[in-house]
This record gives sequence, C-alpha cells and structure tokens, in this order.
Amino acid sequence: MSTQLEPLVLLIEDSDEDYAAMQCIVQKGGWNLVLHRVATADDALDFLCRRGAHEATTTERPALILLDLNLPGMDGRELLVEIKADANLKSIPVVVLSTSKNPRDITVCYRSGVNSYQIKQVSYEKFFQSMQSLFAYWLHTATLPSGAQP
Amino acid sequence: MSTQLEPLVLLIEDSDEDYAAMQCIVQKGGWNLVLHRVATADDALDFLCRRGAHEATTTERPALILLDLNLPGMDGRELLVEIKADANLKSIPVVVLSTSKNPRDITVCYRSGVNSYQIKQVSYEKFFQSMQSLFAYWLHTATLPSGAQP
Repeated sequence: MSTQLEPLVLLIEDSDEDYAAMQCIVQKGGWNLVLHRVATADDALDFLCRRGAHEATTTERPALILLDLNLPGMDGRELLVEIKADANLKSIPVVVLSTSKNPRDITVCYRSGVNSYQIKQVSYEKFFQSMQSLFAYWLHTATLPSGAQP
Repeated sequence: MSTQLEPLVLLIEDSDEDYAAMQCIVQKGGWNLVLHRVATADDALDFLCRRGAHEATTTERPALILLDLNLPGMDGRELLVEIKADANLKSIPVVVLSTSKNPRDITVCYRSGVNSYQIKQVSYEKFFQSMQSLFAYWLHTATLPSGAQP
C-alpha cells in the first residue's frame, strides 16, 4: 500500500518573526504539510542539492518553495535565477513572498521564471488570508510535478 | 484620473464547448475580466505578437494566459516553449488547463516554465470550483507583472 506523504514546503526566510507567523498560519489553517525553513540562499541551495550540512538529508524534494526576496548574502533574486537555471530544480514551483511592490522587482521575478509573486502583507490578518489562498491554490487546485529526486 | 482596466485573460482553447463553459463561469462568478479566446496556437502567437489578423489590435497585453494542451496544429506544449523563450512574452503568467494527468506532461510543462498546471475537471461543478480558485488566486492574491506592451 502506498502512503501519501505530506508535501514538503521549503520556506527561505531570514526573519524569525515571519517564520513564527508562518508556523502559526500553517497550524491554524490545519494544513497537512511539512514546513522546512532555511534562513539563507546558500543554505537553501545546500538543502536542495543535498550538500554541505544537508549532505545526509533523507527528506523528499520540496513540493513548493516560498522565497523571501531580501536575504543576507546572496539575495532571493539571485537564488531564483539559480533555481530556474538548474535542470533538476527548475520544475519546483517557486512563489516569491515580498513586501516589495516595486514593479521592477515583480517583472524581473516573472522574467526569471518565478511561478507567482505575492506581496507579503504587513498586517497579520491579511498575511493569514493571503497564505490561506496560497496553500489552497497550490496544494489543492494546482497540480504539482511529481517529486523526482534531484 | 487613471482608470483601472479589467484584466485581459487570453484563453487558448479549441473546444467551443469548453469556451462556452468558461464564459458561463466568468459570468456566474462575477469576475471583472475580459476573456479573449483564440482556438489555435498560431492565432495565439499572432495575437500576442500583434501580427497577421491581429496586426491592428489595440487591446492591452494579457494579464494571464489559460492554455489548453491538446490543440490542432502546433500543440500547447510547443506554444508554451515559444512563449517562455520570448523575452517579451515570458513574463506573462501561463496556467495550463488540461485533462491530462500524465506525470510526464505535468513535469515537462513545469520544466518549460509554466506558472501552474491545473487538471481540467470533467464535471461542470468541479470545473466551476477550480476556475473560481484560479481566478481568486491569480487576480486577487498573486501580483501580476505590469502590462508592458510587447
């Protein structure tokens, strides 16, 4: 009998506060998913490519990546380009979550292959609602690629 | 005073029945959008690039493209590759709507840069619900790139 694993959602977010808010949102929304957080782009690439500190990881490939744009070191814009240029990683849907409403950021992300761009709402209530919509769409309405290992 | 235009959604769909169902869904859902339908990939490219029969079109650039995979002539898979290889068109979000649940179709579309893939539900009720979720997510939750003309 096959078992349906809970989808793994990789959150790339340097803010501990935003991570805590996201954990709360997942729990309150009753979403059956595993949220794995990394705080830097370099750690995200190590996790996705199973190298460095993540060499021995046995978790499945993420079903969805939630990416903050403004990260210390390599920023989210560069990381997005790296993911979408990698033949093994490019099929994983990436949703950018950013407070930036700059049309240039939005257009550059779509040109770099982001799957969707969401403004990160400042009020918790609006952030909660937008994340419910995100999880409902990506986990229930859309069909994600099957989880081939990188 | 600037006016907020209703977003233009380009539907690439050869089935008249599916087009009629989509028109009904947009109307019943009360979505403020302009639905423009073309029935072939060649006509879609002419519309997007303003050439051929669409040379004199003055409509804005689509905010969103809904793409059926199985089209006569050039099919949706090839059209997706063409759109995502074009520097002027690649930033327009493309959602594939297909009855195909073939994991290969799904993965190939994500590798080709599709923004999301949705199974086209066979029952009208399920199709209606999934399209409500699609429009709610893409037109209200996500932020689309601003409409620079190609």
